[in-house]
Amino acid sequence: MAATERDASASGGETATASVVGASGFAGGELLRLLAGHPGFEVAQATSREHANRTVGSVHPNLRSLDLRFADPGDLDAVDVLFAAAPHGVAMEYIEEWRDLTDTVVDLSADFRLDSESQYDEWYDGHSAPDHLDDAVYALPELSRGDLAGADLIASGGCNATATILGLLPLHEAGLLEGAQVVVDVKVGSSEGGAGGGPASSHPERSGVVRPYAPTGHRHEAEIEQALGLSVSFTAHAVDMVRGASATCHIFPAETPSKGDLWAAFRETYGDEPFVETVAGGSGTYRYPEPKVVAGTNDAEIGFEVDPENGRVVTFAAIDNVVKGSAGQAVHAANLALGYEETAGLDQFGLHPVGSP
Amino acid sequence: MAATERDASASGGETATASVVGASGFAGGELLRLLAGHPGFEVAQATSREHANRTVGSVHPNLRSLDLRFADPGDLDAVDVLFAAAPHGVAMEYIEEWRDLTDTVVDLSADFRLDSESQYDEWYDGHSAPDHLDDAVYALPELSRGDLAGADLIASGGCNATATILGLLPLHEAGLLEGAQVVVDVKVGSSEGGAGGGPASSHPERSGVVRPYAPTGHRHEAEIEQALGLSVSFTAHAVDMVRGASATCHIFPAETPSKGDLWAAFRETYGDEPFVETVAGGSGTYRYPEPKVVAGTNDAEIGFEVDPENGRVVTFAAIDNVVKGSAGQAVHAANLALGYEETAGLDQFGLHPVGSP
Amino acid sequence: MAATERDASASGGETATASVVGASGFAGGELLRLLAGHPGFEVAQATSREHANRTVGSVHPNLRSLDLRFADPGDLDAVDVLFAAAPHGVAMEYIEEWRDLTDTVVDLSADFRLDSESQYDEWYDGHSAPDHLDDAVYALPELSRGDLAGADLIASGGCNATATILGLLPLHEAGLLEGAQVVVDVKVGSSEGGAGGGPASSHPERSGVVRPYAPTGHRHEAEIEQALGLSVSFTAHAVDMVRGASATCHIFPAETPSKGDLWAAFRETYGDEPFVETVAGGSGTYRYPEPKVVAGTNDAEIGFEVDPENGRVVTFAAIDNVVKGSAGQAVHAANLALGYEETAGLDQFGLHPVGSP
Amino acid sequence: MAATERDASASGGETATASVVGASGFAGGELLRLLAGHPGFEVAQATSREHANRTVGSVHPNLRSLDLRFADPGDLDAVDVLFAAAPHGVAMEYIEEWRDLTDTVVDLSADFRLDSESQYDEWYDGHSAPDHLDDAVYALPELSRGDLAGADLIASGGCNATATILGLLPLHEAGLLEGAQVVVDVKVGSSEGGAGGGPASSHPERSGVVRPYAPTGHRHEAEIEQALGLSVSFTAHAVDMVRGASATCHIFPAETPSKGDLWAAFRETYGDEPFVETVAGGSGTYRYPEPKVVAGTNDAEIGFEVDPENGRVVTFAAIDNVVKGSAGQAVHAANLALGYEETAGLDQFGLHPVGSP
Repeated sequence: MAATERDASASGGETATASVVGASGFAGGELLRLLAGHPGFEVAQATSREHANRTVGSVHPNLRSLDLRFADPGDLDAVDVLFAAAPHGVAMEYIEEWRDLTDTVVDLSADFRLDSESQYDEWYDGHSAPDHLDDAVYALPELSRGDLAGADLIASGGCNATATILGLLPLHEAGLLEGAQVVVDVKVGSSEGGAGGGPASSHPERSGVVRPYAPTGHRHEAEIEQALGLSVSFTAHAVDMVRGASATCHIFPAETPSKGDLWAAFRETYGDEPFVETVAGGSGTYRYPEPKVVAGTNDAEIGFEVDPENGRVVTFAAIDNVVKGSAGQAVHAANLALGYEETAGLDQFGLHPVGSP
Repeated sequence: MAATERDASASGGETATASVVGASGFAGGELLRLLAGHPGFEVAQATSREHANRTVGSVHPNLRSLDLRFADPGDLDAVDVLFAAAPHGVAMEYIEEWRDLTDTVVDLSADFRLDSESQYDEWYDGHSAPDHLDDAVYALPELSRGDLAGADLIASGGCNATATILGLLPLHEAGLLEGAQVVVDVKVGSSEGGAGGGPASSHPERSGVVRPYAPTGHRHEAEIEQALGLSVSFTAHAVDMVRGASATCHIFPAETPSKGDLWAAFRETYGDEPFVETVAGGSGTYRYPEPKVVAGTNDAEIGFEVDPENGRVVTFAAIDNVVKGSAGQAVHAANLALGYEETAGLDQFGLHPVGSP
Repeated sequence: MAATERDASASGGETATASVVGASGFAGGELLRLLAGHPGFEVAQATSREHANRTVGSVHPNLRSLDLRFADPGDLDAVDVLFAAAPHGVAMEYIEEWRDLTDTVVDLSADFRLDSESQYDEWYDGHSAPDHLDDAVYALPELSRGDLAGADLIASGGCNATATILGLLPLHEAGLLEGAQVVVDVKVGSSEGGAGGGPASSHPERSGVVRPYAPTGHRHEAEIEQALGLSVSFTAHAVDMVRGASATCHIFPAETPSKGDLWAAFRETYGDEPFVETVAGGSGTYRYPEPKVVAGTNDAEIGFEVDPENGRVVTFAAIDNVVKGSAGQAVHAANLALGYEETAGLDQFGLHPVGSP
Repeated sequence: MAATERDASASGGETATASVVGASGFAGGELLRLLAGHPGFEVAQATSREHANRTVGSVHPNLRSLDLRFADPGDLDAVDVLFAAAPHGVAMEYIEEWRDLTDTVVDLSADFRLDSESQYDEWYDGHSAPDHLDDAVYALPELSRGDLAGADLIASGGCNATATILGLLPLHEAGLLEGAQVVVDVKVGSSEGGAGGGPASSHPERSGVVRPYAPTGHRHEAEIEQALGLSVSFTAHAVDMVRGASATCHIFPAETPSKGDLWAAFRETYGDEPFVETVAGGSGTYRYPEPKVVAGTNDAEIGFEVDPENGRVVTFAAIDNVVKGSAGQAVHAANLALGYEETAGLDQFGLHPVGSP
């Protein structure tokens, strides 16, 4: 693809420089894809220790037309915005260094998602920069838009947590989660395992699976609990797709709402959201949220159904884990932090028909 | 494949004749596959109105080596055992006719699965042969083995109900389901839609899906309720495989059992079952039940995990919906009805590695 | 997705109106997706007899955010550019009518791809508007860019022909195809069968296939012969993807070129092409063209290898059949016809990682 | 699955002991699956250095019901038949040792497939036991059945070579390959890469591919040339399946045969073959060979078509690379070597419907 001139009007004519740390991973590559097409950013550096000096296209074949080589992480220069897509544990180690180089760090790892050291220690191993836990703004813009303007340390939400929180948020805001039993059954693609998967993620073993991989105790429960103030019963299954996360939430509220109540709640929460579409019944083939519809986009489809016999509400949330659940959410947060138009660089449509992206 | 001499010892040296009604469908073809390799059966007729006089191999390419043509359903002859794999509603219409032709009818449809007309009417439209509802033995052999010897009308259990019931049975027998909240989240392959799927099951639309298709109120709830005496909150998702059903049950018992309690319960229920394997943790890639492991076989893998934080037990059940959830279960029931060795004709291993059967 | 303001600079600030006939099909939906994001077009109407008055999003779930309903084809208004994505045979019937409504018709069907009635009759049934065969400009811009400026009837090339021609063009231009034996072995996704596939394209039958579906005599041979002046031995296989066409050409030239000769030929032909990337060896996982890398884009990856032992050159061409092989090529041609920047509206990147789009 | 009593009549009532070296790999696991269901073999040992003392089911989940643990290769005991499924290069190192332990070695690697050291050196690195090259019988039973009775060192044919040779054999025997140009375009599943694939075979990278992986110079060309006495132009593509190999051969004979000539040739070659089915046109969905139809079986489907315009014959060959292309072919050869019924232990049917095994 030949790059055309980008329209900088979405960013008010300004262009910020952006660098990506950990750019050879899946989230890092996706950041490069989104930033390369973003009117308000110019990519300065993309780091990778392993692939330093190789072209970005040698790892991410979709970016062959970019004239960009990986830099060594040690050669990182000052930049307007630093996006960090390194494995968990790296950001807390380098955060001081990074803050000397930039005004705005957007971290995609779990390092700064939780508010307090005690929460962190409950789900992960010890934190080496706990002072920053309180500084960081958790970025799930539908939840925390107000805190993102001018934020200088942003912790972009996790994929499964994002899908789950989006599926529960309207009920939360309508007070329907108080005291409710909540079961979350998530189905995810193989890109969640990252670029360096082990034997279980080799194609012959990983193909065709419906594989329980986090039957209980998934770490994303912590983010969900922090965001919504309730404990959910969470189970994740690996299914045969590369991109995509689908969260089905089974909620037993104190009182069962009607379908009309739920439409009202969803409209209230998502009516003005640029990246959330409510899909709940109707005609045709695609009546409920499906991850393949939003693959490659920052969109979330959220839907619901009522089961009056069992006093249950079911909600469905579908996202692309690499975009809305990771790099896209990070760019969305950066747009808000810098005062850009919220959808700048994130306005692609999904595909139809489409297989299993 | 060239047929070798079959070993009739598993059937005590006897061979019964068997015919298959509705043999051009997926369950009908699977019956033919299993009966052709069964030491105790000889296939007499395979009916199909649409394909009458064509070879069975022209529809089921895996059976090209069989020297057998479809017969018109009107030409059905007397036979020892009649397997009916017609769409729902056909068996109730022809049941009197069939009973004149055979001593043993094994029906794979939903027509005779429920015990009473009132139950039937609650979930389906009116029944035209309600007197037989009470006669029929519901065949999920792990549940009703004792009633199957000599049965003359057998209603083979539905695929999603089979997976769910097998996932809950040990808890049921251990008394852990009394008063428990139960959520069942099922993932199924496209063969459940049968051979004549509509636009939503065309490859470009059905590929790569994680598609909620029965968010609430699936008819298999009726079978589950009848079998276990409790109402479950059931939701089914279509995923990208052809064969396979995976049922994840989230159970909130009055008191949370330990993992040891559950091992004991599973051992008690399934310790001697020839077709059930308990898979619950351990090492390696395959630590919990996965449908691809049992594809093509009559086996069920059942597993569990405890979530003490949430007072939850999670069970996983994986079957091949066309075999254990349909044709294999029917043959298993026929083996028991005729006094054959229980596993006769059903002793294939699954495959490894394997993709998405 | 919320539509952001589009940058009209790529079209010199002008905006043309565009309507899509046959908009409920796969190519029609893709035209809508591309035009909705195109700075130089505004979609006026999208016709579908079957879905008239329904929202476009009810058929194409990726376009739910568009505020657009299908119009009845009988209600078509005058428009700047008319894109026709109807089944073969429709355009020749309506061409006179359409030319009264618009200055520029871009037809995606096979109706006007061949230059003469005699060629057409050799491969298809009789043509009802043969006078226009000569008028129409065959649009494979890499081949016919010069003829497209100001063209008023454009016949956009077929998907398999496009992949094959692109794979052979550099050799053709270097004179290496003269007298050469050429075998073309194509692998295609299920979207080529269109939205109304029959039983063979139902998910249970179409999944997992490597299915010879046009062993000999595919109609796209006609386009290839017309474009390159040679007859190729063409065979197509259906494989398990929705989007994508991959053409492997095995060429036995009079004299075997060196790899350097081929690099020179490819550079000569494609060095300045905005949508063609030469991928021939190198390091990493993606060393040759792969359709999944270009899915959703108008890009073509073309590669080659020399087999000196057998006096053979092998070329590989990978495209998205719905974009570069259909709707994208049509928009590219319209850009050239209207004097827009060539890449306007077609500058998306592909995805990585990505499964089977 | 519970093992039923096996019918030893197919082996004349005898049972031989068999051990499998390299049993944790894909071919090794498949040997165990086939031998466990074989009436004439009893599995003695299954070796794996890495997994010694673990259950076979911990690696091959389909074999969980087997009461068998991996033995260390150093603890190998004397046995009637030794099947070796180790990586290339191992068998040549241990061959002397193994021959002290057994009368019959069936090797699945490439080590003894070529007749002479000079051939071997042309395609592989130096051979450490070249004296055995001449002893070994190349086992593609349709080609070398006569040499297999009583053979004591059997080199089982490679998967891609097997598919190709089977697709060309009738033409070879009919003299149609003399001086013919032959192009072979092969599509293969990921199991060909073995259990220890690298980054390119991780699920996110390997899913959805149509990836040229051996554009020219595949080592299986050597086997093909040795078997048929002609050089073929061979190219292999990885496609998105786990099991399966499909070889499409494009042949330009001196004189183009008619379809009737080809039917006669195929009947002559394969009329009595127990594992080869000719599939060439006809009605229905499955008109030509497809690997998914034979997945899990030792069957090969072979078909053809004539392209008179181009003077071309196209043949199609579909096998399961792990069975007919590896472990099944080895067991077939052992059956012949020991004088067992040829199809003993290899009489499974494939599945329908089936996805992508």
